[in-house]
Amino acid sequence: MPELRKDPIAGRWVIISVERGKRPSDFGMRVPQKKGGFCAFCRGNEHTTPPEIAAVRPDGSLPNTPGWSLRVVSNKFPALRIEGDLNISGDGIFDKMNGIGAHEVIIESPDHNLTLSTMPLKSVEDVLWAFYYRIFELKKDKRLKYVLIFKNEGDDAGASLEHSHTQIIALPIVPKSVHEEINNSMHYFNNKERCIFCDIIKHETASRIRLISENESYIALAPFAPRSPFETWILPKRHESYFAPDGKFPQLAEMLQQTLKQIDKVLNLPPYNMMLHISPFKDEINEYYHWHIEIKPTLTKTAGFEWGSGFYINPTAPEEAAEFMREAQI
Amino acid sequence: MPELRKDPIAGRWVIISVERGKRPSDFGMRVPQKKGGFCAFCRGNEHTTPPEIAAVRPDGSLPNTPGWSLRVVSNKFPALRIEGDLNISGDGIFDKMNGIGAHEVIIESPDHNLTLSTMPLKSVEDVLWAFYYRIFELKKDKRLKYVLIFKNEGDDAGASLEHSHTQIIALPIVPKSVHEEINNSMHYFNNKERCIFCDIIKHETASRIRLISENESYIALAPFAPRSPFETWILPKRHESYFAPDGKFPQLAEMLQQTLKQIDKVLNLPPYNMMLHISPFKDEINEYYHWHIEIKPTLTKTAGFEWGSGFYINPTAPEEAAEFMREAQI
Repeated sequence: MPELRKDPIAGRWVIISVERGKRPSDFGMRVPQKKGGFCAFCRGNEHTTPPEIAAVRPDGSLPNTPGWSLRVVSNKFPALRIEGDLNISGDGIFDKMNGIGAHEVIIESPDHNLTLSTMPLKSVEDVLWAFYYRIFELKKDKRLKYVLIFKNEGDDAGASLEHSHTQIIALPIVPKSVHEEINNSMHYFNNKERCIFCDIIKHETASRIRLISENESYIALAPFAPRSPFETWILPKRHESYFAPDGKFPQLAEMLQQTLKQIDKVLNLPPYNMMLHISPFKDEINEYYHWHIEIKPTLTKTAGFEWGSGFYINPTAPEEAAEFMREAQI
Repeated sequence: MPELRKDPIAGRWVIISVERGKRPSDFGMRVPQKKGGFCAFCRGNEHTTPPEIAAVRPDGSLPNTPGWSLRVVSNKFPALRIEGDLNISGDGIFDKMNGIGAHEVIIESPDHNLTLSTMPLKSVEDVLWAFYYRIFELKKDKRLKYVLIFKNEGDDAGASLEHSHTQIIALPIVPKSVHEEINNSMHYFNNKERCIFCDIIKHETASRIRLISENESYIALAPFAPRSPFETWILPKRHESYFAPDGKFPQLAEMLQQTLKQIDKVLNLPPYNMMLHISPFKDEINEYYHWHIEIKPTLTKTAGFEWGSGFYINPTAPEEAAEFMREAQI
């Protein structure tokens, strides 16, 4: 019997279609081949990107020259622009505003062939540091209300460049999905005086059926109502409403890389999206919301049912996915 | 300057990224080739599908034999099952229920090579009649709260079979997207005593910049805040909260086929999804909600930004898309 499950944070239902039950090999993923060719993100091509906003470089090395191990630059084709006024206005019965915001790119490594799961652990740590630093800086712009940090790995996941990178979009409004998570978490907290994420962590740690791994400070789990097969979340075990892995960057880097290695192993380097969800700037320190990373391999297609309903049909139960992940030899 | 626009019905923001401005030829669509091979939906293979639920056949022709021009059958691999109890229950802090519902398929024509835009107009009319009839029948099952009718055309839009068909999924809960549209429409109505869709139709008919076409009873337009390039909506001009084109099936069929022909012409037979949104069964006749068809060509990818934010980045302004559609010689 298929099962309808509700994600209590997003308020979204999914259909766990166990009778269509898909195991990793059913997705027919093949190890992707990189095409190569000229790449603006490779070492030596620093002058072909917009100027560096931040970088990890040895002392004395000049901006926009080789020597770096990580760079943050503006997106050359930004979805939003940092210059100008919001000019919030109506258009008949509609609402609009200027597309003010920031759109930046973290180039995670100078090496074209490394990914977050194969680069040195220190580089993953630096990527997480870049998340932290850019959120800290962008927050100072009072026009902006939220920063979404996300990664598209692989063509089918929407990556237009194959060199491993993460994107940062700072927005003048709190995005719909985050707004919904905040509202549902706040509602839960108002009822129970407890953070819903903290409760989920406690529940999953006790039952262990959807638990993938844990270390001293972080946990990786398959959510109860995942949108797609092998969706995985990483969360801090202690309540933290904003992204602040102070002193725990190595632990978080290790958890993230290990999880991505498991996904790569089980699913043959699938395309995936990764999203960081944090509290909006306005009420950044709070008791009801808990930052987390969502990793969503691209194994199914968003079709008419999903577009029309906001439901998702998932052919792999998260309990099974978690088991495959736990058993992956990495 | 990119523009942020809000869809007042779905409550969703989109970024109209005009600087990335994409014209139809930029999407690089190529006319799809059908692969052929054995097809359970073709005439002569009636015994390979689950038994007919309904059909358009000449008098005296037997069910599940050739002679039909349209068939409705159960989905062979249903996402939901019609037999059983809902058994709504908790699982720790989570909510779940059995996947009770119906999953049916409308086989729109016995001919493998026809599509909704190339089949005889009478066949399109029959497809719309099948929508109407199946909603009418499924509504009688008191466990069900909503019927979503949708179509996936082309592999990239999620169609697993190339023979033209539409799917029907009846659900035991009102889907999230519909719930949001209902809530926003109700809120608008409570404020203004007017249907938001009726207001939009009036606004778009007057300004004409996003109007694609109209006939006596229906209108096709590009919505103000489309999720993707060339998203198109078809609505009845008169207020109708539930799908009831009584006496107007030919007009609606004509409008639907003409719109699909325009999309095929402008974008080279792109993959697309089509969704019918109606009021939930419970409050089917109302003043605040207005049924409509949404057509969404698959020209962009859903990536980390969209998954993480619920925002969409659309590189083609709807005003431009509407102009291309109006000028298409069909």
